[in-house]
Amino acid sequence: MHAPFGHRRWAIADGYIPGQGLDRGPALISHEALCFLNTGEVAAEVVLTVYFKDREPAGPYRVRVEPRRTLHLRMNDLSEPEPIPRDTDYACLVEASEPIVVQHTRLDSRAPEVALLSTMAYHP
Amino acid sequence: MHAPFGHRRWAIADGYIPGQGLDRGPALISHEALCFLNTGEVAAEVVLTVYFKDREPAGPYRVRVEPRRTLHLRMNDLSEPEPIPRDTDYACLVEASEPIVVQHTRLDSRAPEVALLSTMAYHP
Amino acid sequence: MHAPFGHRRWAIADGYIPGQGLDRGPALISHEALCFLNTGEVAAEVVLTVYFKDREPAGPYRVRVEPRRTLHLRMNDLSEPEPIPRDTDYACLVEASEPIVVQHTRLDSRAPEVALLSTMAYHP
Amino acid sequence: MHAPFGHRRWAIADGYIPGQGLDRGPALISHEALCFLNTGEVAAEVVLTVYFKDREPAGPYRVRVEPRRTLHLRMNDLSEPEPIPRDTDYACLVEASEPIVVQHTRLDSRAPEVALLSTMAYHP
Repeated sequence: MHAPFGHRRWAIADGYIPGQGLDRGPALISHEALCFLNTGEVAAEVVLTVYFKDREPAGPYRVRVEPRRTLHLRMNDLSEPEPIPRDTDYACLVEASEPIVVQHTRLDSRAPEVALLSTMAYHP
Repeated sequence: MHAPFGHRRWAIADGYIPGQGLDRGPALISHEALCFLNTGEVAAEVVLTVYFKDREPAGPYRVRVEPRRTLHLRMNDLSEPEPIPRDTDYACLVEASEPIVVQHTRLDSRAPEVALLSTMAYHP
Repeated sequence: MHAPFGHRRWAIADGYIPGQGLDRGPALISHEALCFLNTGEVAAEVVLTVYFKDREPAGPYRVRVEPRRTLHLRMNDLSEPEPIPRDTDYACLVEASEPIVVQHTRLDSRAPEVALLSTMAYHP
Repeated sequence: MHAPFGHRRWAIADGYIPGQGLDRGPALISHEALCFLNTGEVAAEVVLTVYFKDREPAGPYRVRVEPRRTLHLRMNDLSEPEPIPRDTDYACLVEASEPIVVQHTRLDSRAPEVALLSTMAYHP
């Protein structure tokens, strides 16, 4: 059994879901993921707020990360309260009820080849 | 409404705008971006100073990040007080009037395929 | 001789070993690595716990990082107590007996070309 | 004039200089760079120690980062006291006489296409 590990607030500034991509199966479709790790013994209720360049933020988006579990959330899949538009700059604030770890990854398959980026999210 | 979140000083050390790239539309042109997130209720006045290998720094470059907004700034687009030269090593110091989050991303399309890198900027 | 340098607890949230890849020799096979640096004078006993989306964690996986050495551990190579499944989201907690530095890198060669990501692991 | 900014000790754990690459000019040769930023008014004397899997560390490698300058150092170019072997896992400790910022980038052109990774180095 592990103690809770991480922070309750995280952010990414470079959000962008490429709008097109070759169809080579779901694993290789362009997507952007927030990966959460909850090492603790209590479920983490996570609230996402999505920021844009020229409109008010969207959200709250709610997900739950079960204890002793990881969740790799595809931002493409969010639909409530509204989908995140493609080909649009955004940023994301993550607020969790328990300490978690957050990593941000993008797979871009707009070109025939695949490009990847990943970074730990920012925590204060 | 969210409290301000982040830091007032950030830096990246590996700045480089590739000088050529295939023309597959603006989204896939080689570029380098600084992505800012301002979760607060006050606009952040941001000053960039650009450092080089063998000359005095350039700047100040001034941008504003509105409250509850993200700004993905393409370094390619900066022109005042001078453009950032292509194919030239640089680094960048970011100083903001309010706490913000800064992430650095490069899309390199010099080769026929696309390469991506991204990292949170450094804060002390 | 250098003092110990780093932290004793690290985590990555975006673990994923691509299940297929072109065979262009071992260096270019899809893989995921945790890279450890031990600058100290005492061996670091490292325990990995691997978290999944929908089952209890796997582990402990045990590795040793000798003093004044680096170890680039391919997650693909872990077999005791069980291999890490391919094409499966996971996360990893690293606990070391001595301060170390941990960096996470993935090489993805599922597509004909190669994609790379890397980030420092998270430490509290 | 800016105050010194950064840390005096940094490390990367995932060092690797790909041994081959297509010859498409020096900018696209496989390489690994440590990028330094010195925002202060005093030159930073930097000492690198390079760690391996199965031998004693190499070094010290000495470089200087002038005040108000960036230096993007290709690890490929280091020759004194010895070159860094290609296709070999390594790690690197950076110790500077003044606060600096350090970012680590690899460009891998072993495959016909180019892959990039970058991350801020670790500081305690």
